[in-house]
Amino acid sequence: MHRNEHLYAVILAGGGGTRLWPRSRKAHPKQFLDLTGDGTMLQEAYTRIAPLIPAERVLVITNESYVDLVCEQAPALPRANVIGEPVGRGTAPAIGLAAALLRQRDPNAIMAILTADHLIGRKETFRRAIAAAAQVANTPGRLVTLGITPAYPETGYGYVERGPELVTLDGMTVYRVLRFTEKPNHETAARFVESGHFSWNSGMFIWRADSILDEIARQMPELSAQLAAIAASLGRPDEQATYAQVWMQIRSETIDFGVMEGARDTVVLPVDIGWNDVGSWAALADELPANEQGNVVQGPHILLDTHDSFVFSEHRLIAAIGLHHMIVVDTADALLICPRERAQEVKKITEMLKERGMTAYLEGATSREA
Amino acid sequence: MHRNEHLYAVILAGGGGTRLWPRSRKAHPKQFLDLTGDGTMLQEAYTRIAPLIPAERVLVITNESYVDLVCEQAPALPRANVIGEPVGRGTAPAIGLAAALLRQRDPNAIMAILTADHLIGRKETFRRAIAAAAQVANTPGRLVTLGITPAYPETGYGYVERGPELVTLDGMTVYRVLRFTEKPNHETAARFVESGHFSWNSGMFIWRADSILDEIARQMPELSAQLAAIAASLGRPDEQATYAQVWMQIRSETIDFGVMEGARDTVVLPVDIGWNDVGSWAALADELPANEQGNVVQGPHILLDTHDSFVFSEHRLIAAIGLHHMIVVDTADALLICPRERAQEVKKITEMLKERGMTAYLEGATSREA
Repeated sequence: MHRNEHLYAVILAGGGGTRLWPRSRKAHPKQFLDLTGDGTMLQEAYTRIAPLIPAERVLVITNESYVDLVCEQAPALPRANVIGEPVGRGTAPAIGLAAALLRQRDPNAIMAILTADHLIGRKETFRRAIAAAAQVANTPGRLVTLGITPAYPETGYGYVERGPELVTLDGMTVYRVLRFTEKPNHETAARFVESGHFSWNSGMFIWRADSILDEIARQMPELSAQLAAIAASLGRPDEQATYAQVWMQIRSETIDFGVMEGARDTVVLPVDIGWNDVGSWAALADELPANEQGNVVQGPHILLDTHDSFVFSEHRLIAAIGLHHMIVVDTADALLICPRERAQEVKKITEMLKERGMTAYLEGATSREA
Repeated sequence: MHRNEHLYAVILAGGGGTRLWPRSRKAHPKQFLDLTGDGTMLQEAYTRIAPLIPAERVLVITNESYVDLVCEQAPALPRANVIGEPVGRGTAPAIGLAAALLRQRDPNAIMAILTADHLIGRKETFRRAIAAAAQVANTPGRLVTLGITPAYPETGYGYVERGPELVTLDGMTVYRVLRFTEKPNHETAARFVESGHFSWNSGMFIWRADSILDEIARQMPELSAQLAAIAASLGRPDEQATYAQVWMQIRSETIDFGVMEGARDTVVLPVDIGWNDVGSWAALADELPANEQGNVVQGPHILLDTHDSFVFSEHRLIAAIGLHHMIVVDTADALLICPRERAQEVKKITEMLKERGMTAYLEGATSREA
C-alpha cells in the first residue's frame, strides 16, 4: 500500500439524521456522537484514514453550524480544511465544491469521498481498498465507487450492478459498473441480492478532482458554473460574499442521481470492510460486542433476566427485569424504549415530537448532566 | 357519625420500604411520596382523617430522621405531636409509646392506629368505620381491628377469622375474632379466601389507650416497664436522655405477634374502603385511572402502540414503542423497567444494589433535577 501524495480525503459530515434519537440531536447529530466508546464517528472517520493520508490533505465538509464542533473533535486538522456549508444542498454540490478547491490546489488531486456516519470494522482492509482505488481512479474520467456485499435485501440503499472485470490490484478486483439502482422495492432488492452481481453503494467514491468536475460540467452545467464562480472568487475580497450568495442559489442534488447514474466511466471495487451505516439503534446493537446474555450495555446498570437487549445510559442507572430483544437509550432529558425489531419507528417518535411542538427534545444537547 | 373528643389518631409513618424503588429511597420512603398526584401518602393519611379528628389530636410516629419531613408535609400538626423514634422497633413499641403519652394526656383516650403508606379510595366510608369502631372500642379491654375483604390469596398479609356477631352500628357489623393467622402459605390462604370467614388484617386498629397498655402489661411486661419509665420521665430534665436510653433497649416486635394474637377481647370490623397497600408498582398501577389504552401515565411522554403500561417520569420525556403490560419508572438518577407481573422483583434489584455497594441509588433523594 503506497502513500500517494496527490491523494486527498474529503469527509462528508453534514448530516442531521434523527434515527439515533434521543442521542442524535440537531445540535449533536450522529457523526459527532461516541457510539462505540472508541471516539465520535467523525473522529473514527478521521483516524481510520490518517495512516494513509496526512491531516493537511484531509478536508471535512459540514454545515457551518458544526464547524467548531469538527475543529474541536479533530484538532489535528488545519482549520482551513474544514468547510462549512451555509445550508446543506446534498452530496453533489458538496463534493463539487471540494473538487473545485482541490483542483486549484493540486491539478492532479485524487479525492477519496468518505462518510463520517458509518462504522468500518476492518480498517486496514479499508485503507488498502482506498489506496488501490486511488490507483485505478488516476485514469482521467474514471469514477470509482466502493461496493459493499449486500447482507439482506435492504430497500433503503442504492445498488450497483457489476459488469466485466477491469483490473485486480493488491488482491482486490475492480469491475465496470453496468447500472446504478437507487432504493429498489423489496422484490427487486431480493433479486439483486440473490443474483450475486450487485453491491450496495457505500457512498464512498474515489476519483480525480478534474474527473468529477468534468462530469458535473457535462451533466449538471448549472452547478458547474456556480462552482466555477465560487472557485474564481477564492483569494479575492468578495470570496465570502460570493460563496454565501452563490451557495444559496444551488439546487439540492445527490451525487448518485446527479452524476453517477449518467457517468461515462464508472467502476466498482467490492470490499469486505465490516461496513455498517448505523441506520438505527438495532444496527448499532448488531455491531457492538455483546456479553454472554447477548446484551450490549453502556453505563451503570442492573439487569435481571434480560437478554439480547441494548441498554445505553449516559449517567443514570438502568435497572431492568425481563427485557428481551429491547432497546433502551437514556439521555439527560429523554428516554427511548422499544423492541429491537421496531427501531426504525424511532423516526415516528421524532415526527410526533415535531407535530406536537416538543422540538426542544430534537434540538437540545443530550448531556445536560455532564 | 359523631365526633368524639376522646378520639385520637396515631399515624404510623416510620417505614422505609424499597418495593417502590427507584422513587422510594431511604431519604424519601413511600409515605413521603406523591404517588397519585393528590399529595403525599402521609398527607393523604392526615387529610382523610382530618374531618373526624382535629390536628391537635393527631399524632405521627416516625423515625427521628423523618420528623422534619413530616412537619414540612403536614404543617397543621403541632410539632409536639410528631414523635421521632431513634430507631424503628416495630409496631408494638411505637403503638405502646403513643398509648402511654395519650393516657397521660387523656385517661379516656381512644386511639385509631392508622397507616401512612396505604391508599384508601372510599374516604367517607373509612371515617364512618373509624367512628363506629371508636364507639365499640370504648369498652375497656376491647381491641378493634379493621378487616379488609380479601381479593385473592395473598401470602404476605395477616388474616383475621371472624366469629359471632357482636354488634351492628351505622350499618356496619362488628364480629368477635376467632383467630389471627400471620402470612399463611398459599394453600391456607386460598382456603381462607374461599371460606368467606376471613378478612385481611389492615394494620389499622382502634382501642382505648388503657386497653392496649393493659394488654402490653400482661403479654409484654418488659416493654410495659420500659414504656412506664419513659412516661415517668416526661416533663423531667432527664426526659430526652431517658427516652433515648430506654428506647435503645427495647426489643423489636409487631403489635400482631406481641399483642393481638394473645389478646382477650379482639373484634374485627370488616370494611369496604377501597384499601390498597401499594406493595408494588403494579399495585399502584391497578389503583390509578388508566387511559383508553389502559396506560397510567405521568410526566412528558410519547407512546406508540403501548398499552396496559405504567409510565412514570419526574421530568424526562419517555418515548416508548410497543410496550405492553410494562412498568417504567424514571427518576433523576435511576430508571426501572419491568413487566407488570414481575413488579415484586424490584426487591431483588435493591438487594443487588446493596450487594454491589451501589447504595447511593438506595439512599439518595430522587429529585436532583427538581
